[in-house]
Amino acid sequence: MSIVTSTPALSRRFDGVRSSIVRDLLALTERPGVISFAGGMPAPELFDAAGARASFDAVLATAPGKVLQYSPTEGNADLRAAIADRYSVRGLPTRPEDILVTTGSQQGLSLLSMALVDAGDVVLVESPSYLAALQCFALAGATLVEVPSAGEGIDAEALAQLAERHQPKALYTVPTFHNPTGRTLSSENRQQMVDLAQRFGFRVIEDDPYAELRYSGAPVPSMATMSATDQVVCTGSFSKILAPGLRLGWVRTDPTTKPALVVAKQAADLHTSTVDQAAAAHYLASGRLEANLTRCRTEYGRRRDTMLAGLPRALPAGSSWNHPDGGMFLWVTLPPELDASQLLAAAIDHQVAFVPGAPFFARSPRTNTMRLSFITYPPDVITEGLNRLAAALRL
Amino acid sequence: MSIVTSTPALSRRFDGVRSSIVRDLLALTERPGVISFAGGMPAPELFDAAGARASFDAVLATAPGKVLQYSPTEGNADLRAAIADRYSVRGLPTRPEDILVTTGSQQGLSLLSMALVDAGDVVLVESPSYLAALQCFALAGATLVEVPSAGEGIDAEALAQLAERHQPKALYTVPTFHNPTGRTLSSENRQQMVDLAQRFGFRVIEDDPYAELRYSGAPVPSMATMSATDQVVCTGSFSKILAPGLRLGWVRTDPTTKPALVVAKQAADLHTSTVDQAAAAHYLASGRLEANLTRCRTEYGRRRDTMLAGLPRALPAGSSWNHPDGGMFLWVTLPPELDASQLLAAAIDHQVAFVPGAPFFARSPRTNTMRLSFITYPPDVITEGLNRLAAALRL
Repeated sequence: MSIVTSTPALSRRFDGVRSSIVRDLLALTERPGVISFAGGMPAPELFDAAGARASFDAVLATAPGKVLQYSPTEGNADLRAAIADRYSVRGLPTRPEDILVTTGSQQGLSLLSMALVDAGDVVLVESPSYLAALQCFALAGATLVEVPSAGEGIDAEALAQLAERHQPKALYTVPTFHNPTGRTLSSENRQQMVDLAQRFGFRVIEDDPYAELRYSGAPVPSMATMSATDQVVCTGSFSKILAPGLRLGWVRTDPTTKPALVVAKQAADLHTSTVDQAAAAHYLASGRLEANLTRCRTEYGRRRDTMLAGLPRALPAGSSWNHPDGGMFLWVTLPPELDASQLLAAAIDHQVAFVPGAPFFARSPRTNTMRLSFITYPPDVITEGLNRLAAALRL
Repeated sequence: MSIVTSTPALSRRFDGVRSSIVRDLLALTERPGVISFAGGMPAPELFDAAGARASFDAVLATAPGKVLQYSPTEGNADLRAAIADRYSVRGLPTRPEDILVTTGSQQGLSLLSMALVDAGDVVLVESPSYLAALQCFALAGATLVEVPSAGEGIDAEALAQLAERHQPKALYTVPTFHNPTGRTLSSENRQQMVDLAQRFGFRVIEDDPYAELRYSGAPVPSMATMSATDQVVCTGSFSKILAPGLRLGWVRTDPTTKPALVVAKQAADLHTSTVDQAAAAHYLASGRLEANLTRCRTEYGRRRDTMLAGLPRALPAGSSWNHPDGGMFLWVTLPPELDASQLLAAAIDHQVAFVPGAPFFARSPRTNTMRLSFITYPPDVITEGLNRLAAALRL
């Protein structure tokens, strides 16, 4: 029985529908027999299970009183140093005190939205964009404005006009192996965005969980290397390179933003799991991460190639798709008269699933798009899934 | 270098000063040689280190692909069932689907503030109250209104007047072994609050992390047992009964509030650490928790008694304090002319620390109060700490 009279505030300021769509879709991956290209799940057989087990056991054996206890809001000192080192080695000098450990990079986005965004502020987002990031900004009361694309990049001229018109607080981007599209912004395009951010005084939130999963092509520098100021704040994650179940991510921040982030983090969960952080720091120190990353890159690259090879006979004539150099996703544009959401029912009847692209657009959904994940299954299952997709889409 | 022009939103809507005070104070506990009664740290030597290690190892050995993977936002099914069972056994019938696992109960408070509170809403709080909860409500834009005390309880008449005047969205309370005061509200007082919540249509957030740490006296029923409606939402935690480092808590919610909480949780961190949840579920199933809780109760009770026995000669004449039946804290009222914040410097010179009470008041600080934690140290260290306190306060 419920006589509660207060309306949940959340329902007034956030339309949970898109969120529920994707949640329901991902639930399909759990149906027995369905081959789902919908989820963004790393392949569990590529987790370094022995390494993770050994690291948890080591820290629980040697320092149980410490790793089971409360710990600093900013994060484990060894882990912060290791994350900072990984940035520095890749050409972005970073100090341990610049790193705030978060409960997954999702929390990094949530804290940034709390620290930077007031109700009514404009946040510029790519079109399409990562759904759960849009949720964070929407919950903080932001008005989301989509920046149009030009080719494989962001339309810099349009960005300049939008910045002038809206005085945005921030631009949110996943520049490398973007979710949902898999696209990577060029060095030149990144520099344009950073220049505009400095000119108009907005922050760039560079969400970068996939950059280390590169299977071909040359690395593109982080946007933070292109700014002599603190304009670019980065979020990162161990979810795609170690294990998502640990919920370990971070924000690479700066003296201007950090105090507010720490207050927000303290209110959010005091700190991230002490034992998970200690185990991850131990694992990084063991040197096993690089070997396992190499194994993942090889296998994921093979899976990407398998999917790319199979798409021509799986998709209707007139479809097109990109060839990402890494990450987890590729993006399909169907002929304009097709609606991916409507096709999904037929796909599920054929025991295969994908995510329709429409929910990833903040404002103007393109209904003839879909996101396909290529990393969860081994090549033979990908091929079988594409066979089913071909059967489902035989229109 | 920083030319960032956007002011962090957080700094405009939250005064971080009180938060920093307490953070700085707690940092004192890390100074070598200081005996700190300031922090709310469980005693690390009472963690069931062997049991925790065995449970982590078991889940990582038997299901690594599952416990290292993404998992449902609502939480581990076995863990939710175990939490629900523990409520049901104690007289509050609860279904697994009523439980939302959170990253510590701190996150439960954060999600509830997002789900229930809009900017400008009034949230009623005890005076004094748990600081990090006040932060959550303040971050959500709430106006905090203190409800005065009457004896060891909340002044029900004042509560009715405040409810009438402010149309509050919620009342936040820690009814059992309160932080910071250690007080426990009587059954009658709880029923009065629940009745007023139903009459005026506000929610009661019953934050209950300490109830299982009872060393004397008879249990008092949860406020949720006193309402035939969904007026009372409970938060709980494994931090004080298993280990805070796992960051495992929960909200006991209802069909009205749950959808908004799940959206907020998804935006906050997608889900709580899969491996920590699995290890906790394994540990609960092992039956070791009850044995360890018995050990903790015995030892913490001894520590409480040691502190209570030592206070008369440690504190200035005219001081008074309560005798909590459990939990972690007791509350000292010094003679009215003394300011605990000013006394702290002298205490630290004598290598002992406490938390001044003033920061725990949302509006009208009582400067002659202090919170003492009695659970972190064994009795001989407590006695030594009180000797130092006596020397420091010899005015």
